[in-house]
Amino acid sequence: MEKFEINILGCGAALPTPHHLSSSQIVNIRQKLFMLDCAEGTQMALRRLHLNFSHLQAIFLTHLHGDHVFGLIGMLSTFGLLGRIQDLHIYGPQDLKKVFQPQIDYFCADAPYKIILHEIDSHISETIYEDRSVTISSLPLVHRIPCCGYLFREKPTPRHIRRDMIDFYHIPISQINNIKAGMDWTTPDGTVISNERLTTPSDPVRSYAYCTDTVYHPKLSELIQGVSCLYHEATFASEHTLLAKNTYHCTAQQAAQIALAAQVGKLIIGHFSSRYPSENTLLQEAQQIFPNTILAEDNLKLTL
Amino acid sequence: MEKFEINILGCGAALPTPHHLSSSQIVNIRQKLFMLDCAEGTQMALRRLHLNFSHLQAIFLTHLHGDHVFGLIGMLSTFGLLGRIQDLHIYGPQDLKKVFQPQIDYFCADAPYKIILHEIDSHISETIYEDRSVTISSLPLVHRIPCCGYLFREKPTPRHIRRDMIDFYHIPISQINNIKAGMDWTTPDGTVISNERLTTPSDPVRSYAYCTDTVYHPKLSELIQGVSCLYHEATFASEHTLLAKNTYHCTAQQAAQIALAAQVGKLIIGHFSSRYPSENTLLQEAQQIFPNTILAEDNLKLTL
Repeated sequence: MEKFEINILGCGAALPTPHHLSSSQIVNIRQKLFMLDCAEGTQMALRRLHLNFSHLQAIFLTHLHGDHVFGLIGMLSTFGLLGRIQDLHIYGPQDLKKVFQPQIDYFCADAPYKIILHEIDSHISETIYEDRSVTISSLPLVHRIPCCGYLFREKPTPRHIRRDMIDFYHIPISQINNIKAGMDWTTPDGTVISNERLTTPSDPVRSYAYCTDTVYHPKLSELIQGVSCLYHEATFASEHTLLAKNTYHCTAQQAAQIALAAQVGKLIIGHFSSRYPSENTLLQEAQQIFPNTILAEDNLKLTL
Repeated sequence: MEKFEINILGCGAALPTPHHLSSSQIVNIRQKLFMLDCAEGTQMALRRLHLNFSHLQAIFLTHLHGDHVFGLIGMLSTFGLLGRIQDLHIYGPQDLKKVFQPQIDYFCADAPYKIILHEIDSHISETIYEDRSVTISSLPLVHRIPCCGYLFREKPTPRHIRRDMIDFYHIPISQINNIKAGMDWTTPDGTVISNERLTTPSDPVRSYAYCTDTVYHPKLSELIQGVSCLYHEATFASEHTLLAKNTYHCTAQQAAQIALAAQVGKLIIGHFSSRYPSENTLLQEAQQIFPNTILAEDNLKLTL
């Protein structure tokens, strides 16, 4: 299977602690890296996880609270010092340019690469990025300031060639791509060999939704129906349900309810408030509703 | 002796690495903390060293290159979330307000404390801060952008009372502070007891100069004559002397020459280029000129 890997660099909430950096992730799809949020310390975390800076294609920011963006300018500056020349596109909600263009102009004036900021409308779901491997779209969330999640959906891969059948029918190499794409084969004597006999099914399409920060927002589940994996914020335990609502965050139970309604494959909960010495209570509360839940951890690598 | 302690949080140059954060230090004078520079990751380093955030009095930035300031906004934001109410004064050269006021206005709008930015003239040496324990003055440096070092000079402490003599002459408690301040004592029969018999000398006045980043700048040694301890940048080894000059940095030898000319007590070299897998060459080159040299290290605590 082609690579589709989630790297969690940090999964803490507002306060970075020795246990958790604040929010930052790398999605690695077929060796292209996409960054989700960029908390302070992200560039050091990239080094720790041996993620190759130069493979970073684009950065997607959910919202402009510091715990999701304070590592951005330092990382951009470092890329410049390391001689990056490839353009870097950064997507984020309203105010992205107002906040970051002056910093980029000041601190990255000599950078040998171009940084392009794209403000997106956080109130609608739309395709933000597309290449031959993946489509990335935005997911409206409800937080104290404009905020959106992101949905990564792998493009379907070709069917797999059955080497034995290709040899048996002496199908020329020039036709392999057509066969992979689903074409039948007609032998010299006019017999049609159906594609199903020449190939095995393509790998299932995988998808990943990154949803942080948000108040409990049941409509979100419609937009992420059936995703392979959902990362959902679970800042609080159920004892702090009211606090969650008032600060526009979720409890672990609410995250699990979204996962259940969306029938996702797996739920990762994160964005943990630093008030909990251990996140096991959060895990247990989520698993009672959605058993296939795991806790995010800094430096966790997860293959979908 | 009263506390006078240097805490090195980071001593790398432009690129933060797993070995070194970029520049940041805490000077602890009698339990008041003063910060020098604030590289990305400084707030996490403060936690690692168990330095009490709330004892931070003021921040002194040498210049506005990213490796000296990228941790500032995240740390200020964290102080706000932790409920700091005490004013915080930040000193730095030209452009300090232009660069940081908009970030503070955006990210610390709800902070319950006041952040006051002070732009200082980096071309002259003047007193920047003074309280009853310490005087902090600026030191003009020569770098690619406006840049200054800082000199901490402890205020003289009172002489030490000799308890045995106080008892012997039955000197009342009400007179102790006068005696500490240098007053002689006259006995009821008119005999004058000189202060030297009643006290021992006060502790020597300690001082610390923080000088980074700068090209080799011999005039600096006049401003820091006889300081107890000098931190001087030593970005490069002697094989890169020309590169040092062209980038307005110093070699370890040049740092040692400044220390020698200034007759300082001890030299700490830092701001190491990440190109050197070990800094031992830098240490040896400096020690040939100024033997009492040590290498800065992240998380190093040094009592003066």
